[in-house]
Amino acid sequence: TIVQGVQTVTIIPGDGIGPEISTAVMNIFEAAQVPVQWEERNVTAIQGPGGKWMIPPNAKESMDKNKIGLKGPLKTPVAAGHPSMNLLLRKTFDLYANVRPCVSIEGYETPYTDVDLVTIRENTEGEYSGIEHVIVEGVVQSIKLITEDASQRIAEYAFEYARNNQRSSVTAVHKANIMRMSDGLFLRKCREAAENYKDIKFTEMYLDTVCLNMVQDPKQFDVLVMPNLYGDILSDLCAGLIGGLGVTPSGNIGTNGVAIFESVHGTAPDIAGADLANPTALLLSAVMMLRHMGLHDHAQRIQTACFNTIQDKRVLTKDLGGNAKCSEFTAAICERVQDLD
Amino acid sequence: TIVQGVQTVTIIPGDGIGPEISTAVMNIFEAAQVPVQWEERNVTAIQGPGGKWMIPPNAKESMDKNKIGLKGPLKTPVAAGHPSMNLLLRKTFDLYANVRPCVSIEGYETPYTDVDLVTIRENTEGEYSGIEHVIVEGVVQSIKLITEDASQRIAEYAFEYARNNQRSSVTAVHKANIMRMSDGLFLRKCREAAENYKDIKFTEMYLDTVCLNMVQDPKQFDVLVMPNLYGDILSDLCAGLIGGLGVTPSGNIGTNGVAIFESVHGTAPDIAGADLANPTALLLSAVMMLRHMGLHDHAQRIQTACFNTIQDKRVLTKDLGGNAKCSEFTAAICERVQDLD
Ligand SMILES: CC(C)[C@H](C(=O)O)[C@@H](O)C(=O)O
Ligand SMILES: CC(C)[C@H](C(=O)O)[C@@H](O)C(=O)O
Repeated sequence: TIVQGVQTVTIIPGDGIGPEISTAVMNIFEAAQVPVQWEERNVTAIQGPGGKWMIPPNAKESMDKNKIGLKGPLKTPVAAGHPSMNLLLRKTFDLYANVRPCVSIEGYETPYTDVDLVTIRENTEGEYSGIEHVIVEGVVQSIKLITEDASQRIAEYAFEYARNNQRSSVTAVHKANIMRMSDGLFLRKCREAAENYKDIKFTEMYLDTVCLNMVQDPKQFDVLVMPNLYGDILSDLCAGLIGGLGVTPSGNIGTNGVAIFESVHGTAPDIAGADLANPTALLLSAVMMLRHMGLHDHAQRIQTACFNTIQDKRVLTKDLGGNAKCSEFTAAICERVQDLD
Repeated sequence: TIVQGVQTVTIIPGDGIGPEISTAVMNIFEAAQVPVQWEERNVTAIQGPGGKWMIPPNAKESMDKNKIGLKGPLKTPVAAGHPSMNLLLRKTFDLYANVRPCVSIEGYETPYTDVDLVTIRENTEGEYSGIEHVIVEGVVQSIKLITEDASQRIAEYAFEYARNNQRSSVTAVHKANIMRMSDGLFLRKCREAAENYKDIKFTEMYLDTVCLNMVQDPKQFDVLVMPNLYGDILSDLCAGLIGGLGVTPSGNIGTNGVAIFESVHGTAPDIAGADLANPTALLLSAVMMLRHMGLHDHAQRIQTACFNTIQDKRVLTKDLGGNAKCSEFTAAICERVQDLD
């Protein structure tokens, strides 16, 4: 059934607490009357011809058609040789930009206030190339691959993002003092992109210096752009500053509007099915998704309802310091969403 | 002149504020009647036969003879192709373990209290191999080199350090989920070493997870051991937690007792020569050096004098929140050292 003006989004509930928090998000979307309908798909790695790992065809087709996905946590493969599904999804849809806004949540206290930054991570190459060799017994090399194209693409994305989101500066994070050629190339592409965005302030900083400054005063940072592994590290560090992966959204952006938004926390098997999970990270990822789809009013309303519920402190899940169930926290947000109408 | 029971140490004052803070340390050592005499050497990169970069022969000879060095900050080479002197020193003397204790300083407030951990960084290989290639135009690779020998050496060092310093746990930090062969080898060597140190608890954790947990609750960590680049990042992050590089000591340890202790902050050219620098990082590095030399009483006395001076808050350099000169702060420490006799 195709409803007028309603967009279809692929939802991958995921494992562990994934289904519960996905239901929470779907309920909140319904309360907010978001013009979105869901196409649910499961994702587990399957082996195609020649043993190549791939995602199930019906998930691939759904994403190819809908272009936009929302994804809960997927369990880490235990069997050796199995790929991480998260990585396989990024690769399958060439989701080259991993975007993680880290914004302090009023009412949820951490040692830091007024954090408001975004990490933009190159998502396709670098240390994640997967190319490794044994040179001789006891000597191993891993290859970090940096290309001009991928570096340029992510650099331009960062500046576009800054401009479109009323942000004033972009910091390129690198270790070009050590990896002169690879990080050097990445940095050069950032400098070149900066030339075309004179309205955005450009700075460059060593990764170690960023880490040091970040824990001393995160307020100094705005948009940060970096190669793959540095983004993995820095995005987790920054998530820690505002309260952890339970409250931090994430988006994986590709070309032609293709994107998957996901919570990056684990599957929390210990509380799975117990109605105790916190859906905030997935909900805020869904808010990012709505902005990506141009549904800014709905995004704003849901975000406000979520933040107000947290700030109000009366109905909170356990990890947020309360004793409400996932469904109660969700109901509280639904109520606020409707009040904001 | 060889004085009975007096050991000679090579001192490399360094650039910028280096000479001032070196003088401060030497004055405090004198006040504490430390049985050490200094052999001063300058270090700038020179080119030997075939264009090979090396440290000046008289600095090399001094270190070869004395085995132990104390080093202030060295300015970053500006000319392309010049190596970092810090890296060249580590390489020249095969200083394979970089050790940085991060301990909260009472009276010097940061968002964290009771931090008490040590990062132990493999200092000779990994991402710092310096091997890079252009594959084709626009495609660059950097090689991360991990060897069994270096991994085993650093893993064993970490457990030895833990045992000798009354520490109870060692955490191996890695990304073996991504770099399965290289970080996998490193991790395997840590696991093997753990087998021989049943008195020390062993855990392993992804680098991103460590960063996240570190900013949320650094108290959970004790000794951390990791490959080169991860150590570069994590040691700066941890320094940030306790107040920055101005108060964080560092030691580079080799075999047969060879070691160089150094402050890892910059040369601060803006305040060089103005008697405004904070000698704490170099002083605490010198305290590490004394422990390395077995001079534990002197080490303890100087450390106490330094911490008491900071805690007392009356005589502090500007970066520590006061308005004393470097020489005044130094004199305050000297006075306390003598009182502690
Ligand atoms: C699950 C894991 C492979 C992944 C990564 O290392 O990129 C995760 O840490 C992330 O940040 O999305
Ligand atoms: C000066 C620089 C080359 C060095 C490094 O990257 O190792 C520094 O950051 C350090 O931690 O000692």
